[in-house]
Amino acid sequence: MYKAPLEDMQFLIDDVIDIENTLGSLPRFAEHGLGPDLTTALLDEASKFASDALAPLRRGGDTHPATCADGKVTISPGYAEVLRGLGDGGWVGITADAEYGGQALPELYGTASHEMWNSADMAFALGPFLSSGAALAIAAHGSDELKEKYLSRINSGEWSGTMNLTESGAGSDLGPMKTRAEREGDHYRIFGQKIYITWGDHDANENIIHLVLARLPDAPEGSRGISLFLVPKFLVNDDGSLGARNDVYPVSVEHKLGIHGSPTCVMAYGDNDGAIGYLVGEENNGLACMFTMMNEARLKVGLQGLGTSEGAYQQAVDYARERVQGGVPIIEHADVKRMLLTMRALNEAMRALAFSEAVTMDLAHYGPEEARTPNQRRIDLMIPVIKGWLTEVGLEVTSNGVQVHGGMGYVEETGAAQYMRDVRIASIYEGTNGIQAADLLNRKVGRDGGATMEAVQQEIRDTVEALKAADNPALNTLGGALESALADHVETTQYLLSALSDSTFRAMGGSFDYMMQTGYLFGGWQLARSALVAGKKLAAGEQSEFCECKIATAAFYGANILPRCVGHRGAIIDSASTLEQYPVGWL
Amino acid sequence: MYKAPLEDMQFLIDDVIDIENTLGSLPRFAEHGLGPDLTTALLDEASKFASDALAPLRRGGDTHPATCADGKVTISPGYAEVLRGLGDGGWVGITADAEYGGQALPELYGTASHEMWNSADMAFALGPFLSSGAALAIAAHGSDELKEKYLSRINSGEWSGTMNLTESGAGSDLGPMKTRAEREGDHYRIFGQKIYITWGDHDANENIIHLVLARLPDAPEGSRGISLFLVPKFLVNDDGSLGARNDVYPVSVEHKLGIHGSPTCVMAYGDNDGAIGYLVGEENNGLACMFTMMNEARLKVGLQGLGTSEGAYQQAVDYARERVQGGVPIIEHADVKRMLLTMRALNEAMRALAFSEAVTMDLAHYGPEEARTPNQRRIDLMIPVIKGWLTEVGLEVTSNGVQVHGGMGYVEETGAAQYMRDVRIASIYEGTNGIQAADLLNRKVGRDGGATMEAVQQEIRDTVEALKAADNPALNTLGGALESALADHVETTQYLLSALSDSTFRAMGGSFDYMMQTGYLFGGWQLARSALVAGKKLAAGEQSEFCECKIATAAFYGANILPRCVGHRGAIIDSASTLEQYPVGWL
Repeated sequence: MYKAPLEDMQFLIDDVIDIENTLGSLPRFAEHGLGPDLTTALLDEASKFASDALAPLRRGGDTHPATCADGKVTISPGYAEVLRGLGDGGWVGITADAEYGGQALPELYGTASHEMWNSADMAFALGPFLSSGAALAIAAHGSDELKEKYLSRINSGEWSGTMNLTESGAGSDLGPMKTRAEREGDHYRIFGQKIYITWGDHDANENIIHLVLARLPDAPEGSRGISLFLVPKFLVNDDGSLGARNDVYPVSVEHKLGIHGSPTCVMAYGDNDGAIGYLVGEENNGLACMFTMMNEARLKVGLQGLGTSEGAYQQAVDYARERVQGGVPIIEHADVKRMLLTMRALNEAMRALAFSEAVTMDLAHYGPEEARTPNQRRIDLMIPVIKGWLTEVGLEVTSNGVQVHGGMGYVEETGAAQYMRDVRIASIYEGTNGIQAADLLNRKVGRDGGATMEAVQQEIRDTVEALKAADNPALNTLGGALESALADHVETTQYLLSALSDSTFRAMGGSFDYMMQTGYLFGGWQLARSALVAGKKLAAGEQSEFCECKIATAAFYGANILPRCVGHRGAIIDSASTLEQYPVGWL
Repeated sequence: MYKAPLEDMQFLIDDVIDIENTLGSLPRFAEHGLGPDLTTALLDEASKFASDALAPLRRGGDTHPATCADGKVTISPGYAEVLRGLGDGGWVGITADAEYGGQALPELYGTASHEMWNSADMAFALGPFLSSGAALAIAAHGSDELKEKYLSRINSGEWSGTMNLTESGAGSDLGPMKTRAEREGDHYRIFGQKIYITWGDHDANENIIHLVLARLPDAPEGSRGISLFLVPKFLVNDDGSLGARNDVYPVSVEHKLGIHGSPTCVMAYGDNDGAIGYLVGEENNGLACMFTMMNEARLKVGLQGLGTSEGAYQQAVDYARERVQGGVPIIEHADVKRMLLTMRALNEAMRALAFSEAVTMDLAHYGPEEARTPNQRRIDLMIPVIKGWLTEVGLEVTSNGVQVHGGMGYVEETGAAQYMRDVRIASIYEGTNGIQAADLLNRKVGRDGGATMEAVQQEIRDTVEALKAADNPALNTLGGALESALADHVETTQYLLSALSDSTFRAMGGSFDYMMQTGYLFGGWQLARSALVAGKKLAAGEQSEFCECKIATAAFYGANILPRCVGHRGAIIDSASTLEQYPVGWL
């Protein structure tokens, strides 16, 4: 059964990132007393909840999926109680403003806890994920009245929230959206159908607050004519009590490859007399309102890749220690050990990257004034890498988890295949990984001529120097591997920047490989930073098996994983024109 | 709906491989008149059967899996009739001896038809696959009496066959097997339980012939004490009519990630008075008997990777042409086009490799006497590559098929995810891909000090020269890419040969990457051979869009896929010692 990797998490938070000195003095966090004691307390509490309450639900959520009948959804056994427990524990609003019922803790703690929920049960974790996303959009763009009325109740987990974007003809491109909103006094009436609405309906909370994109009658065409509305399942009276049932109902739930416990609903708005909704932000500015929460949402989808991978890894290690073939536990077999160490190294690299950049997000929002813009540019650059790379790697790691189990992995009862089925959606939603790759290259690298990327590359160069100067051969070798991967990355970055000005198509054809190359490099860099810290502790005389292990894992990553970067380099530089010239009629 | 890639198949068979001149004059095949007319006739017939009869069953087999109750299995709707149709068409025994009801056609046609069955419905295709495997083992090792009595009825599809190896404590390592056989006059009584028995029971055929590994009371311990027995579901009278029900029953079927239509049974032998069985081959020589059919079986598992990939590709292309986002069909988007062309290039490379080596298998069995040994050594080398690489690539291609569909790919109704779920088993059964990798390196490369591998590398070098000499810039560039991948492969081969003598563990730690590197190289080489033939046709003035397309696809493979080889090279050479030294207690 799942146990949170507390030692690695605490090492990252307090030793590598050093939350106390990085964030502790910022006004937003000053009163918390950030540092090791708080980290231990928070991680322990989250870990217990993940192991004791959530993880036991995972298989049942898979085998007893949510169902929809008579206009309501019934969720998997045990989900409702644990969902309320999560809210009661303060975890839904962990990073939200204290003014509105949040804990106002750093994103780093939110990130650690989200990793745990996703390891324990990704389908379940989607519920609070959507709630905090909705809360974030209301906090950023809602009127004071909306905030007063709804925000604390969502942040406390008393009510849940959803995001309603997709329609059957409007997915990655929201322009053709047809759901419409009509003005009616101080509110609106919403009419239309939304699909793929995660946790769109359920009976665990007494109210659900839907955020819905819709088009006003006089709106401009395309994506500039979309507005955002808050549509509660039950109308809320001025005293906060619940009023009439609003005209929004689930029509059906999808039968999906994975995340069976997460009800993915078709939602009908206004089939009777119109669903009452309230404008969030300005009219026709709905997409912008959605985008403000996109970075947080995409970071959390990346964490789904990491969380499922950690769950899959732990289960595979347990199995490999117990399963005997040829007279020894299979963990002793070279290729099984290779799979397990690959999984572990990728997990630690994903965690190191995601945790580091959770800090960047806080610095962008709450850092010293002069630090906000550079940190915002950096987190903008990091997000498509974290979303895209972690979810792609998540598929590899969870698939390796199946493989370690042999035939047992293919049998559903084992629960290994579920990690793989669950994580497969994470490459698709919140912007497909193709869209992440395009966003990384075209917007995040292209918009400043590569300046932000160059700044990160310079930081990597500094890490390379530190590795090469370390009094440790494993770190020296890792420095060489990182240096080589960095040189390749500098080359592809330049190549693609120049391709961008020649032919967007040609550049975009290499964008996915570039995203993967960037992810392997960044993950290796952050893991190397951890290894450097571990090396310093050992050099200072600390007896720490954890630190030795960290260096060995990073060394394996450098030797076994980093060479993938050069393959991506080749694909980017060599294949763009053959792709461009290939007639689509030949496919 | 699936359409067999007839043009590519016929081009490979008649233009690249030139079956008429390669195999046409061999005594085994002489009377068939091998060549384009026969190819067209056979492929057309198989293609119609695959499209019209099999492909419509695929989704139903998934949503209405086989069930087991009261000691019998009920298979998915429509399966029984189509299974009998496949037998009636002569496809089960397509490559079997004419003396025993087979068609005695080359493995190449068996390979092409098996690809089609697997594209249409892999779960279904497992039925005839197991039958022909059982027939092969009986043909190679059974007494004349067993052959007379059983073989024609299996080859004709009238009866089906199964292979019973695995037990709960005996998987990859069969040594600890517990199923026992007791001598009783001219037959034996079998007692024990087998698991993971594919198509272990069903009601489509009137009899099922089980091949069962079991241990005699006085047998040596471990894998040298295992014998092979033929255990019919119904005993067969001397006149060929069916006698009493034998004491072998399905206990349950597994609930699996994929291939739901294939009943994966727990089989109970001798729960009542013992299942009557007949010895196949010599006592205590059962594993050797099984191994003779292993090459054919592993080639066909490789074809499952190819078949599902082709099915997934076709569905993804259809979807991408129809789905409009941002005003254009998504097939025009750079990253979607990249995914589709990657899928296509990998499929063509897999097909080129599998088809080429199907010929090697026939030459090893039926070629001129002096050609048999070298061809046997070559096919021995190729099989782990084909089994391992094609099934790994199959997962990538089918996962890309899901990705092209976006959110629709994650919804099961679309049928895209099923290809991915189905193919996932192919990396596990018939020897996990870790075992394939070990077999390739330790036995197939190691046993002759790399001589067979060097012979293949020399052939690749010849292809490189031809590409570089061609009057076509795309072929010249491809030649350069193949040359570079070959040089890396020569280096890793030497490295691993030398590692083998230092530390088996260290060598084995690189074996999986070596198998993948070898697969990408061999696939690229065979695709390049096809492109050379296409280039010659164009140079001779033939107007052929197919030939232009073949060259462009190969060029993309060279530019986009072949660079992966260098990543594997790095992983092999750099990481072996870090893997070896990592204490398993740290995992």
